[in-house]
Amino acid sequence: MRAVFQQELQEVQERLVEIAELVEQSIDKATRAFNESNVALAEEVIEDDSKIDALTVSLDELAIDILARQQPVARDLRIVVSALRVSSSLERMGDMSEHIAQLARYRFPEKVVPKSLRGTFLDMGALDVAIAKKLTELLRTQDPNLAQEIRNDDDKVDELHLSVFDKVLGERWKGDTEETVDATLASRYHERFADHAVSIAKKVFYLATGDWAGSDD
Amino acid sequence: MRAVFQQELQEVQERLVEIAELVEQSIDKATRAFNESNVALAEEVIEDDSKIDALTVSLDELAIDILARQQPVARDLRIVVSALRVSSSLERMGDMSEHIAQLARYRFPEKVVPKSLRGTFLDMGALDVAIAKKLTELLRTQDPNLAQEIRNDDDKVDELHLSVFDKVLGERWKGDTEETVDATLASRYHERFADHAVSIAKKVFYLATGDWAGSDD
Repeated sequence: MRAVFQQELQEVQERLVEIAELVEQSIDKATRAFNESNVALAEEVIEDDSKIDALTVSLDELAIDILARQQPVARDLRIVVSALRVSSSLERMGDMSEHIAQLARYRFPEKVVPKSLRGTFLDMGALDVAIAKKLTELLRTQDPNLAQEIRNDDDKVDELHLSVFDKVLGERWKGDTEETVDATLASRYHERFADHAVSIAKKVFYLATGDWAGSDD
Repeated sequence: MRAVFQQELQEVQERLVEIAELVEQSIDKATRAFNESNVALAEEVIEDDSKIDALTVSLDELAIDILARQQPVARDLRIVVSALRVSSSLERMGDMSEHIAQLARYRFPEKVVPKSLRGTFLDMGALDVAIAKKLTELLRTQDPNLAQEIRNDDDKVDELHLSVFDKVLGERWKGDTEETVDATLASRYHERFADHAVSIAKKVFYLATGDWAGSDD
């Protein structure tokens, strides 16, 4: 029974990694679609999001099934409950990619943001992609250093997010209303993407180090 | 054992209702703070959010403790897992109230939105408050009609959310960049608040009617 349970936990972990890989691809494509006004890529992201949604629903069903059959306690129980939460955050990360891709599609063939913000969004996008890669690796290895790296990267995303508002509200901003709305939403989506990764990283970190109480945020 | 379990489920439900009541108060205060530029009220909302956060963490601990001790299966298990998800959505609703209150505080003594949008935000705020009240009642009574009403109200919130963009992007919009940014974020927060309520309503509806598969969104 115990061996079966370990095998099942293994499967949960593998499926989380699989979903994280899809999220990684989706944010990579979404930020490229956004920065390069690539509408075909944007549409791929939007289509792929339903795949992420379906995989998280099916993972949740597996986790609930494990709870019912294996009746885990203590740390094992927390691992399974954690998997449900990680899956929910991954699903939201997929949604953020989709929102970014949608902005690219709406504005096509125009670029979403004016020149003065392109460097900032390139950096923010690159950080989101780096965070997603580290998250996949963290879910694969449970290396606590990666959790810390994700937090550091998130701090950088937060700084860039604030700098978008500084620019938009600054005297030199030449963008029209549409560009202001788009920049505001796009920046928020990039920032939320990273927030969800931090939330997952905290859960994995505290599971790895045994301190559960800090894992809710 | 069974009686104890039922009592514990009862406690979970009561605590969810208690948190929902706080969320209801917080969105009521936040939307008033927002519409009336009441900074004292805004600060109350911001302070109260940590109470909501603490209560959700403690509810999650109770739910996990019940899973460990009672090892529920089938529908009972799904009720407890559902409680964890409902709690997470309530926590996010509290965050949305807080974000709305923060906008009011930042812009004080100015109003957050210009005259042309005040009616829209009054309506959107009133709908969010109505949704929060219905949600508390739904968690108390599991009345499926309330779940449907919440979905209908959410459709109205979505329409108002789109109408904000129509106005902001319309030719008659006279707002400056700051007002454009604020209207964009405020509208998004109001809309997300209602989305989380719908997500909870779906879970409660499907628990009440027995069809779990549709409860993930």
